[in-house]
Amino acid sequence: MMRSIGVLGGGQLGLMMVLEGRRMGIRFNVYDEKPDAPALRIADAVYSGDDWVKLINDSDVITVEFEHVNPRALELAHEAGKLRPSLNSIIPKQDKIKERLMLSNLGLPTPRFMIAHGPEDIEKAYRTLGKLVVKVPNGAYDGKGQFYVTNEEDLPAIPVQYPLLVDEFINIEKEVSVILARAVNGEVAVYPITENHNHNGMLLYSRAPANINEDLSGKATELAVKLANSLNYVGVLAVEFFLTKDQELLINEYAPRVHNTGHWTLSGAVTSQFENHLRAILGLPLGNTRLLKPTAIVNMIGVQYSEELINSILKIPGTRVWWYGKSQVRPRRKMGHVTIVADNDEELTQRIRDILSVIYGSLINHFIPPWDHVDGIQGITGHGTPH
Amino acid sequence: MMRSIGVLGGGQLGLMMVLEGRRMGIRFNVYDEKPDAPALRIADAVYSGDDWVKLINDSDVITVEFEHVNPRALELAHEAGKLRPSLNSIIPKQDKIKERLMLSNLGLPTPRFMIAHGPEDIEKAYRTLGKLVVKVPNGAYDGKGQFYVTNEEDLPAIPVQYPLLVDEFINIEKEVSVILARAVNGEVAVYPITENHNHNGMLLYSRAPANINEDLSGKATELAVKLANSLNYVGVLAVEFFLTKDQELLINEYAPRVHNTGHWTLSGAVTSQFENHLRAILGLPLGNTRLLKPTAIVNMIGVQYSEELINSILKIPGTRVWWYGKSQVRPRRKMGHVTIVADNDEELTQRIRDILSVIYGSLINHFIPPWDHVDGIQGITGHGTPH
Repeated sequence: MMRSIGVLGGGQLGLMMVLEGRRMGIRFNVYDEKPDAPALRIADAVYSGDDWVKLINDSDVITVEFEHVNPRALELAHEAGKLRPSLNSIIPKQDKIKERLMLSNLGLPTPRFMIAHGPEDIEKAYRTLGKLVVKVPNGAYDGKGQFYVTNEEDLPAIPVQYPLLVDEFINIEKEVSVILARAVNGEVAVYPITENHNHNGMLLYSRAPANINEDLSGKATELAVKLANSLNYVGVLAVEFFLTKDQELLINEYAPRVHNTGHWTLSGAVTSQFENHLRAILGLPLGNTRLLKPTAIVNMIGVQYSEELINSILKIPGTRVWWYGKSQVRPRRKMGHVTIVADNDEELTQRIRDILSVIYGSLINHFIPPWDHVDGIQGITGHGTPH
Repeated sequence: MMRSIGVLGGGQLGLMMVLEGRRMGIRFNVYDEKPDAPALRIADAVYSGDDWVKLINDSDVITVEFEHVNPRALELAHEAGKLRPSLNSIIPKQDKIKERLMLSNLGLPTPRFMIAHGPEDIEKAYRTLGKLVVKVPNGAYDGKGQFYVTNEEDLPAIPVQYPLLVDEFINIEKEVSVILARAVNGEVAVYPITENHNHNGMLLYSRAPANINEDLSGKATELAVKLANSLNYVGVLAVEFFLTKDQELLINEYAPRVHNTGHWTLSGAVTSQFENHLRAILGLPLGNTRLLKPTAIVNMIGVQYSEELINSILKIPGTRVWWYGKSQVRPRRKMGHVTIVADNDEELTQRIRDILSVIYGSLINHFIPPWDHVDGIQGITGHGTPH
C-alpha cells in the first residue's frame, strides 16, 4: 500500500530526502556504489554495483539526488516508466555543453558562450568574448574542472581534452537561485528567491528572501518556470542565476533535484524542498512554499564534528544543525549545514556572521566583510555548482 | 565523538525523536520488546528482552519515550548516572497514586482526590466529592482503566482491585497543556500553551496558541515550571491542565517525555519538542520555542493507510503528514498525525475541521459542532493521557 521510492545516489541530499519521507510512511530503496554513503544508513533497502534492475523492480518511482549517476540506470528507469524527473531533464546535466545548448535552444538567457574543439577556438573566444571561464563538460562542480582566462598567459594552462565549454566572464552582482516544485499535473509551487554566497567556487551560505527588487524576482521566477514547463518537469528543480552588474539575469545552470541553496526550506518554509520533491514525484498535492521568517543556510565545509562546535552553533538563536555523518573529513567536503531563522534581515545577517565565525574561526576575516567586497570577482566567488 | 542515546521504548514518540536526532549526527540505540515497534526500523542498533545492561553500556545517555518501561531498566540507567530525565521524574508516572501524591506534596493544584482501599472508600468519596472518576493506578491512559461514578448505580461496576485513585469529577471548560524543555543548567524554554480536544478519552487534536487569557496562560506556565524545577527535570516535560468552569487551573497529570499535544511543534515552532528534548538531555543549548504561525496537530486514530487519505489531507493547505508505520490498525490506535499551520485562528479552525472530515468522514458530525458543545462533559472528553 505504501509506496517505494528508489533513490539513485546516497549522499546528503538523499539522506535528507529519506528523513523527510520516512515520517510520511514512504519506503526508500537507496542505490550508491560507496557502502558508507550517508543515506544508506537509514534506507529500507540498500542497492549497489549493477543492482539497477532490482532497484527499479522494487520501487514504484525512481528519482535522483545527484545527476552524475550511471546513464544506463537512468535509461532502465526511463524504459520502466518510473523515472521522475524525466530522462530529458537529467541527461543534459551530465554534459555542460548539452546543458548550455538546451537552455540556449529554449531561448533562455545564459552567459555568451562558445564550444572549443581545440586551442585555437579558445584564443578566438578570448578575442571575441574577452575574459573567459573554461569548463570541462562532465566534471565541473563545486569549483572543480573550471579555469579562468583573464589574460593571454592563462591560455596555455587550459586542459588539452576537448570539447570544452567556453563562457564569457561575467561581472556578477549577485548569484540567486529559484527552487520550485512541479507536479505531474503541471502545477508549480515556487519558493521565495534565494541569494547565494560562494567562496572558492563552493556555496558558503544562502539566504532568503534575496535582496533583489520585485521585477527581477518576478523575471527569475518566470524563467525558471519556463524551463520547468519546457521540460515537462516533475519534482524539485533548482535554477541558478547570475545577476550581472547591468541588472541582467543569466541562467548559470540548473539542477534536476533538490539543491544546497534550498536547504533553508527545512526550517524557513512551511514545506521543505525535500518533502515537496517527494510529493511531486508521488503525484501528491504540492505543499505551501511560503517563507515563515527570514532564513538562511550555512554550509559546514571541511570541518570535523565536535560537540563543542555543535554547542557553539546552537547557542546562536534560531539555529538548527544537520550533520551528514560522512566517514571522512576532506578540505572541500560538505560535512553538514546550519539553518537559521530570524525576525528580520539585519538579525539574520548578524546570525550568519556569528555562525561563519564559529565554524571557520579566524578565517572569517577572509570572508566578511572583505569577502563581500570581492563578491563581484568571479575568480573568488567561482562558477561552481553547489551540490 | 558523536554521542549515542539509548531510548527505552520504540513507539511513535521514539520514531520522531530518532528522525529529528539522526540529522544532527546523533546515534540511537532503541529498546523495545516488540520487534515491529516503529522506531526500531530507523535505529542504529536495536535492543530487546533484558538487553538493558548492554543498552546502557552502549549509550552515553538513556531516555524514555514511554513511562511504562521496566523499572529495572530505569534503575540500572539511573545507577549508571545516564538517565535523563531522572528516576524521580519517571517513577511516579508508573502509579497514578504516587503521581498524585507527589503533585499534591509539591503544593500543586490538582482535582480533589481520595485513595480507595475498598468499596466503602468509594462510597465515602461519592458522599464527600460527588460525581467521581475512578482510576486504576498503573493502567490508565488513552481513556483505559478509568470509570465514572455519576450516580449510586455506577458503584458496583468499579473494579475489585485496590487501591484506586478516586478523583472528584471536574466540570471542564478546556484542557490545556504546557510543553517545556529544561536544560541541565536549569534553563527552561516553554512552548506557547496548547489547547487539547479529546474524544472518548483520546486526544483528537491540539491547537496553539490556546484560546485562554494571559493571566491563565501565565499561571499554567508558572505551575509547569515549578514542577520542572522541583524535579530538577532535564528534557521535555508535558503538564496537562483542566481549566474548570470556575476558571481554576488543575493539573490532571504530567508526562516525563515528549507529548502528543506537542506534535505541532514539528511544523509550528522554530524548534520541535523532539529536538529540544535531545538538546536538553545532551547538554546542548535549548532551541527557540516560539510559534511560527497558528498551528495544530490532528491525530489519525484507527484508520488504515491509503494514498487517497494522504492525498486528501495534503490537499488542505498548510498540512504535513506523519505516518508511524505500525504493523496493525486497531480501533483506538494512533496510526499517524497531521500538522497544520495557518495565517490566523479562523483559518486554522476551518482546516482542523476539514482534516477531521477527511479522516473520520461522516463521523465528523459526532465531533463538531455537537462535539464542541459536549466538551465539558467528562464522560465524553475523558481523563485520558494522550501518549
